[in-house]
Amino acid sequence: MAALSSSRTSFFFSTASPHPKPRRISKVVRMAYQENGPSLAVVGVTGAVGQEFLSVLSDRDFPYRSIKMLASKRSAGKSVRFHGEEHIVEELTADSFDGVDIALFSAGGSISKHFGPLAVEKGTIVVDNSSAFRMDENVPLVIPEVNPEAMKGIKVGKGKGALIANPNCSTIICLMAVTPLHRHAKVLRMVVSTYQAASGAGAAAMEELVQQTREVLEGKPPTCNIFRDQYAFNLFSHNASVLSNGYNEEEMKLVKETRKIWSDANVKVTATCIRVPVMRAHAESVNLQFENPLDENAAREILKNAPGVVIIDDRAANQFPTPLKVSNKDDIAVGRIRQDVSLDGNKGLDIFICGDQIRKGAALNAVQIAELLL
Amino acid sequence: MAALSSSRTSFFFSTASPHPKPRRISKVVRMAYQENGPSLAVVGVTGAVGQEFLSVLSDRDFPYRSIKMLASKRSAGKSVRFHGEEHIVEELTADSFDGVDIALFSAGGSISKHFGPLAVEKGTIVVDNSSAFRMDENVPLVIPEVNPEAMKGIKVGKGKGALIANPNCSTIICLMAVTPLHRHAKVLRMVVSTYQAASGAGAAAMEELVQQTREVLEGKPPTCNIFRDQYAFNLFSHNASVLSNGYNEEEMKLVKETRKIWSDANVKVTATCIRVPVMRAHAESVNLQFENPLDENAAREILKNAPGVVIIDDRAANQFPTPLKVSNKDDIAVGRIRQDVSLDGNKGLDIFICGDQIRKGAALNAVQIAELLL
Repeated sequence: MAALSSSRTSFFFSTASPHPKPRRISKVVRMAYQENGPSLAVVGVTGAVGQEFLSVLSDRDFPYRSIKMLASKRSAGKSVRFHGEEHIVEELTADSFDGVDIALFSAGGSISKHFGPLAVEKGTIVVDNSSAFRMDENVPLVIPEVNPEAMKGIKVGKGKGALIANPNCSTIICLMAVTPLHRHAKVLRMVVSTYQAASGAGAAAMEELVQQTREVLEGKPPTCNIFRDQYAFNLFSHNASVLSNGYNEEEMKLVKETRKIWSDANVKVTATCIRVPVMRAHAESVNLQFENPLDENAAREILKNAPGVVIIDDRAANQFPTPLKVSNKDDIAVGRIRQDVSLDGNKGLDIFICGDQIRKGAALNAVQIAELLL
Repeated sequence: MAALSSSRTSFFFSTASPHPKPRRISKVVRMAYQENGPSLAVVGVTGAVGQEFLSVLSDRDFPYRSIKMLASKRSAGKSVRFHGEEHIVEELTADSFDGVDIALFSAGGSISKHFGPLAVEKGTIVVDNSSAFRMDENVPLVIPEVNPEAMKGIKVGKGKGALIANPNCSTIICLMAVTPLHRHAKVLRMVVSTYQAASGAGAAAMEELVQQTREVLEGKPPTCNIFRDQYAFNLFSHNASVLSNGYNEEEMKLVKETRKIWSDANVKVTATCIRVPVMRAHAESVNLQFENPLDENAAREILKNAPGVVIIDDRAANQFPTPLKVSNKDDIAVGRIRQDVSLDGNKGLDIFICGDQIRKGAALNAVQIAELLL
């Protein structure tokens, strides 16, 4: 599990803010605590996404009657704040899920593979942020704005455990903007190039980017513990393993998850995933080829009405989405919406999408899934 | 004209190195000074590209019998080093080109538009790094490894002035890698997403990126003089003006210059140009669609033999091109070479290209053009 982001880092870069806004504490405590609410568990609570789970649960007044803070043995005994109260982190064990209705997992694939099924056996509904079960045909892969029907029938209170997978951050951010267009004109082919933030590799990667940047500015050799390549003032191909077809795992997630979420085995997707020295929001340059004509004004109108999407597309002022504009925001931002000059008949569009990787790319999407369980 | 990069910045980030390597000084002076060599002028000599002109001329032992250092009135009187000697910068005027055989221009489009034709009238051959004449059908647009035939017949010693345009940096870097593949399998369509360095906006932009990064790390508000958006730990759509078709000028350069350089009015190109917080080398994610099948092994073989191109494509070690790996290097690096899973029949490839923006993207290419004039 990634270490908890230092408060110093949080302050400078608006990383996960683990504390609810003080002015809301009393109100939130009253609204979110409910005797008949579900019992919750957060697995990997000390990581960047784990901390954001707490922040989002709090911001959205998610109802709960109890909450367990779970992490590795190393983090057990630490204290985390939630709704203005201190909670002691417990070590994750096979017994952790007794009586837990909903568990939000973000502790890496191997933890999910081991403890996810154990939790389901105990009747817990697991919302898993790892890649462990995403392509399992028995596990729904859900973006609530896109395919809530995939988890139909899975509800708290039925006494039945279940697994639901949170898609990869790049997929969520991309499909939030592309799906409304797809529904209108049917995407035949999508070419994606990503500009991915440090946060996708955890809080330790964010801290290393800060440390390296300081070192480079001071003329010192940069410390490279998390990534092989220098990250400060540089960029590099995503650190995920490269498969035999030459794509890395991150890229193939975009290819495969899109097919599953859209229930469309024929949609053609290619992707190039790159890490850039940005803290917590991803950007994606997306080229779309449609079956039916779609002009850019129609596209803009569709996106204007898309839930969870805002348009930033001021050509005169040269103002478009940036990672900083969406950091700590729920909504995905879309801009640079334009007819692709390389495709005839209004059958192509280029768009540029930004989204907070920790929030909608991970924690928010998982909490939205959990809301559908109630 | 952009201000001269501070030596402090140069030291930390390997920006333009204005001084020839000391151990080579005596050798270089003897080799490059030639009584029957051409007389040179460098316009915009105090800018990032201007300084790199001197560095490249020196590194390549470019023969010369005299050299004029030209810049704006503001920079006149400053001193620049070349081949171990101090040269005083003169103010650029209509009379600057008397007796000058070759002038290398990099002082912005308006300077080129005004002084370029004046120089040509005096019999000077102008190699222009601005966009002023690139799309002029009477002006060759040349990448020496790609289309040297476009400047056939233009030579020093004929007593005839001429204009030759240096393509845009993104175009040069892209076409260095893509042209060899195009010649083999014919590119029908190309989708480019760029990751562009600060240097493309001049030395002042590089300095602002350093300054902003320091400020952000110190918790201060970042100084935004050059760009509207924060640059440190962020990225944004390229600052070039956005045209009525929604593309910005930088993107349309890739579209139009590719057609001109390849003499192929039908090639389909689309591009999304993004600035990333990197100092002096661009990266480009390029998706290629071919008329004829081209498998990735054949592509790798073709690129291995391409002049000015190196392959960095170690899948097992996850080592691919990065901006830092090509900074201050002449060669363009290509990697992530793979069959596009979204196109059937081996008719698509994805590749990732990096190249030093100041060097091959500007100064080196211009000096190579000048070499063809001798």
